[in-house]
This record gives sequence, structure tokens and C-alpha cells, in this order.
Amino acid sequence: MDNFNFYSPTEFVFGKGRESECGKYVKKYGGTKVLIHYGGGSVVRSGLLDRVKASLAAENIPFVELGGVQPNPIDTKVYEGIGLCRSEGVNFILAVGGGSVIDSSKAIAVGALYDGDFWDFYDNKAAVEKALPVGTVLTIAAAGSEGSGNTVITKTDGMWKRGAGGDALRPKFSVMNPELTYTLPAYQTACGATDIMAHVLERYFTNTKEVEITDRLCEAVLCTIIKEVPRVLKNPEDYNARANIMWAGTVAHNNVCGVGREQDWNSHGLEHELSGIYDCAHGAGLAVIMPAWMEFVMPHNVMRFAQLAVRVFGTAMNFEAPEETARLGIKAFRKFLHEIGMPVNFAELGAKEEDIPRFAEKFSVTKIGNNGVTGGFVKLTKEDAVTIYKIALNASV
Amino acid sequence: MDNFNFYSPTEFVFGKGRESECGKYVKKYGGTKVLIHYGGGSVVRSGLLDRVKASLAAENIPFVELGGVQPNPIDTKVYEGIGLCRSEGVNFILAVGGGSVIDSSKAIAVGALYDGDFWDFYDNKAAVEKALPVGTVLTIAAAGSEGSGNTVITKTDGMWKRGAGGDALRPKFSVMNPELTYTLPAYQTACGATDIMAHVLERYFTNTKEVEITDRLCEAVLCTIIKEVPRVLKNPEDYNARANIMWAGTVAHNNVCGVGREQDWNSHGLEHELSGIYDCAHGAGLAVIMPAWMEFVMPHNVMRFAQLAVRVFGTAMNFEAPEETARLGIKAFRKFLHEIGMPVNFAELGAKEEDIPRFAEKFSVTKIGNNGVTGGFVKLTKEDAVTIYKIALNASV
Repeated sequence: MDNFNFYSPTEFVFGKGRESECGKYVKKYGGTKVLIHYGGGSVVRSGLLDRVKASLAAENIPFVELGGVQPNPIDTKVYEGIGLCRSEGVNFILAVGGGSVIDSSKAIAVGALYDGDFWDFYDNKAAVEKALPVGTVLTIAAAGSEGSGNTVITKTDGMWKRGAGGDALRPKFSVMNPELTYTLPAYQTACGATDIMAHVLERYFTNTKEVEITDRLCEAVLCTIIKEVPRVLKNPEDYNARANIMWAGTVAHNNVCGVGREQDWNSHGLEHELSGIYDCAHGAGLAVIMPAWMEFVMPHNVMRFAQLAVRVFGTAMNFEAPEETARLGIKAFRKFLHEIGMPVNFAELGAKEEDIPRFAEKFSVTKIGNNGVTGGFVKLTKEDAVTIYKIALNASV
Repeated sequence: MDNFNFYSPTEFVFGKGRESECGKYVKKYGGTKVLIHYGGGSVVRSGLLDRVKASLAAENIPFVELGGVQPNPIDTKVYEGIGLCRSEGVNFILAVGGGSVIDSSKAIAVGALYDGDFWDFYDNKAAVEKALPVGTVLTIAAAGSEGSGNTVITKTDGMWKRGAGGDALRPKFSVMNPELTYTLPAYQTACGATDIMAHVLERYFTNTKEVEITDRLCEAVLCTIIKEVPRVLKNPEDYNARANIMWAGTVAHNNVCGVGREQDWNSHGLEHELSGIYDCAHGAGLAVIMPAWMEFVMPHNVMRFAQLAVRVFGTAMNFEAPEETARLGIKAFRKFLHEIGMPVNFAELGAKEEDIPRFAEKFSVTKIGNNGVTGGFVKLTKEDAVTIYKIALNASV
């Protein structure tokens, strides 16, 4: 096990109706002038935004609003938010929405206290050290951004999708009411679940030896998703199933499943080029990329893939041919993704073969350093990226 | 799933040699005058105390010392610590040791800022709201006190062993170097592992329905302990096995495995009467009590015990007779405890049959309220407690 620090100071406020308490928590964490940041019309239509405002009003906390965050949040909205925070003297940002809104809020939070261009943090030109405090009211179980110090933003000039992170960006509190996810369409529910599984699998595939506790925790999250997602697709208002998925999404990404081990994250990198260019859902892109990446890297550690197959997908171990077990595990993963309505190849995602060189080029520029490779579990070259995109192109269940 | 708050703000500083950084972390969390609190001679003999002092000295942080904390820490040492904090103007307590030292430190931390008798917090006469900040350098994987807001102290007048808790008692940081546990005797290693398993099982047995994510997380910790403890007993300097146990011990008790569900904790209550009176190791007492409690309550929810048997102990499911599977799971648990060197009955623990009425009486006074019962999974009466102690009396593998 590698040395590590684990620090997850966010207060999670979980359960039915808890959004009515968000004013109380803003006050607890020092907010006296709030920016409410949100996305499209669903938080307005559902009445959630009004409940959040009422909760702030009940604590006599003034606020300004900035809506219109889009999936795959973009830099122009961040600049708008930074300007608003400065002109209005905002000292707390309340994100009401999913990963995109939270990520946009974090970008505003760090940018508002920085003299230069906030993109510097995403361009590795500046390190996150201070930020306005952020709280969240989560509306989709997926990104894990409610418990993480990470944020991903797309720069519209060139459609560069990049991440930044630091402990200062960990939310002070996150309100998580599973009821708020009842109205999520099946497709978005499944995209979220895929993202959760990917967050675990990026940590699961490691070259660090003998990390049983984190292996088992990863498997716990994966088994939960596999059990609960079909239940919510059948009954979108199954509270317990929604609640299990929502808490699993947090556990999957606050790094309790990933400490002390080398992680990979190449599937996220490969996917970011797809959703950066097509504006498809991140989870859908992962459903296409991750099994393809698995097929490519599986020979690197057959027994680790066999462990996944046996412990998570219930595959019988083939002791004479472990690689057969490993292959069946990947197949079961892709079949699960298909069954919950995810795309498994380029055509189903709406991606085009002729764009592969462009993906690989951007992946290479964003991720691959001077040494010509990137990644933890298996180091990938630009040519490897092309191969993986081609596996994804024609994949089938 | 029940509504819950989850808040675990401790910064865990995990890995080889990390104790050399504890001065840096005391400084980070505002300590300018430290009480170093510790137990017996092992931290002195091993040189750990000197390394801790050197680390504080390197940051120019003055300190005073108070050693002599005993297993099952007592109130008289707490009073001594409170007096020392006040007379020396201490503003940070650094616990160097295991659960007993950390619990004693927390008692001092809350007592130092309280006008009355610190025992009020353990007697439900006062609620924990503020305390001096505490940091820890952990030397045994067991109590989980390094990540929890809980503390258990024994009042020497009457040998009352009671707990208190609150978020203000969560350590600011905990240094966890698995190497520091190399020299633990096999018996103490096994006691610690038993305590870790008990922390999980007290949460696992619940009447809350459909809490798959926390079920799976609990099982993850249990499977890890079952794999890793025999490895460290064979090779006490197996770093990775020690590291897996140590992190499992934290995950077992920072409540990530217990949120959103009713918990039980009667086995801890029943055990506290044993270790309060005999001064035996808490883990050894749990090894005797917990399987006995399981046998008593198993009919309440046969399928939950069958789930434990199948998922954790690898028992084959008997679909025609699930209670047989449930029984085999309890049997496997007791057998595991026996194999790692734990007592499984009164004789092996050094407990006496004639003391059972006294245990039951104290358990009743401490735990049972006016309604005549206590517990979450199965409500116990004083008579039930007698029955469980009698099962423990004659248990065998």
C-alpha cells in the first residue's frame, strides 16, 4: 500500500426533505451573501429552486442567482459567475444541480479569489490553494463532485475539456435528497450509474499490490450499482434504491475507495475527448470507452480482471483459463451497460469513425507528456488511444 | 434508508514514517502548546515518543507530557490531564498510542473547556459541544477512535465504563503508520481485529430495510480482516497486511459503514461490563460476547445472518434451511476468532459464572432505560442479558 492522505471534510446532509435545511448549513459555514448557481429549467419547474430560496430567506441570507449551466459546463459561464461574485460581494456559492453545476461552481469559487484567468488552474499554470466556500444541493447521483475537490470545465475556444482540483474545492456541505432524483429520465439515471462505476474502476485497476481493503470497498460500490440501477429503472420512485445509488456515488469518488494505490484515469481522459466534441453525456461516453479500454489492457493483469468478474459479476472462475473468466467479466460489464440503456459503440453514441484521429490528437495533447505515455495501470501512447477508440467503434454485446 | 448526516473531517496521514510529520500537522491545525498523552513504556522504548518530540521541536512547538494511560482508561488520569492543560495553557492534545490513549485524550479535551466535572459528559448530564483540538499518532489498529468522535472512560469509583461523543471530539488529524504495529503481540493484534469486526457487526445487524451500499461496505471490511489477520499473525512485519487492517479499522468506525440505518451496540454494552470489572482486553471480551449475542438474536432475522454467512464466511447457502446457513455463519465467526487466538468462553477469558448477575445488573443500570429494554436490532431485557452471558459461559468452537 502506498502512503497517502485522506481528507474528506464535507458534511453530507442526506435524506428526505433535507433541502429545506440548506439555509441553516450556509449559515453554519459562514455564508452571508450567496450565489445560487444552477442549470436548466428542471430545478425551477420542480419547485426546488424556490425551496432553496425559502430556506436562505428563513435565515435572512441574501442571494443572487446565475442559472443556465449546461451539461459539460463551459468557461464563459464561469467568467460570468466570477464577475457576479465580485460585483455582488458574494462569499458563498450554493450549487443546485448535478456534477456540471457543482463543477462550474467550483471553477467560479477558485476563480473569484484569483487575479489571473481561472483557466490557469485547468492548464496546470496555477495550483488551487484558496477558493470561496461551496455548498451543494445534489440532483443527480453521478459525478461525485458533491464530495470531491475536483472540477472539469470545457474551454469553448477549441473545446478543451480539462480538470483541476484541490482540497479548497471540497464542498463544505452537500445536501443529498434521493427524492430529487425521482424525475431523472432513465437515460440520465443510467449515465450517472455508469459514471459511478467508472470512478470505481479507474481506481480498481492498479499496479499496487495487496490493497485488499480498497479492492473490497470498490467491489462493494459496484455490486450495489448492479443491484439497484435496474430497480430504479423499473420504478423511478423507489426511494431506497435511489438512496443506495446516491450514497454509492459519493463513496465512489471521495477517494475512500482509492487511497494508497496507483490509479489509472485513462478511460476518463479518452472519454473527455468524445463529450468535449459531441457534447454527449459523460456517462454515455464512458459506457462506450471503458469496456474497450478494458479489452485493450486486460492482458496486463489477467487475474485482476478475473477478480472483478468473480467478485462483482458473479462469473464462475475458470481455474484452467483465467483469461476466459476475465473476458467474461468484461462481457458482463458491457451487457449490464446495454441492459440499462447505455450505448456500447460509436454508432449508438453518435460518434464518428473519421473523428478518431482528432480524439487521439487531443487526448495526446491533453494527457500525454514528453515521455510519450500516460496512465497508471497501463501506460498508453497516442497509437494505443487510436486502437482503443477503434475497439469502441465496433463493440457489441 | 434513514436520513443521516455524515461528517468525518479528520485528515488521515497514512503510511511509512509519517509520524515525523506530526509537528507539521499540529501547526497546520493551530496547536502552539501541546500535551503529549501516552500510555506505557512501549512508545518510549520504541523511540516513537522521541520522534514525536523531535517533530514538534522542529516546528518550535513547546509541549508537556502525560504518560501512564492504562488499557480501559480511567477517570483519575483524565482529571490529571485536565489540570495539566489548564496550568500549562495547553491548546492542542496529541495522543500517541491506541484507543485508550485517544479516548483519554478526548476526555481531557472536552473536560478542559468545561466548568463542571468531565464525567457529566459520560453520565448524559452534558452534551459535547466544544473541546480542545486533538491529533493522534496511532499505534494499534482496533478502536477506530482515530477517526471517531467517541470516547469510553471507566470511573474507578464503582468501575463504571461509559461512553460520550460529539463531532467536536473528532481528531483534527491522525497519523497512521502501519509499521508502528509490527511490535504488537499476537494477542493484542487479534484483540484489535476483533474490535474492528465488532464495530462493523454492530452496524450490520439492523432492522432498516434495503441498505445495500452499507451492507456491502460492512462486508468489505469483514472480508479484509478475515484475509489479513492470519497473515500478520504469521508474519508480524507484513507491511501490506498491517496497512490493510489499519485502514479497515478506520473505515469500520468512522460510520461510513453505518449511516442511514438503525444500529445495535448491545454487544459492546454487554462486553463493557466484563472489561470494566476484570480489566480484560475489550476485543477479547467481544470475542466471547458477540457470537453468543448472535446465537441469541439470530431467529429475529435468519436471512440477515445467512447473508453474513454466505457473503463474508463463504458458507454455501442452504436454500431449504436458511437457518442452518445462518448457524454455520456464526460457527465460522467463532472458529475464526478461536484460530486467531481469541477466547470464546468465560473460562478462556478468565470470567466467572458467579459474576453474571453483577454484569447483568450493571448492564441494566447503564443501558436499560425506563422502558425495560435496550438495543436496536433486538431489544434486550436484563433477563436476556443473563441468557446471553450464559451462552457465552459455555461456548465452544
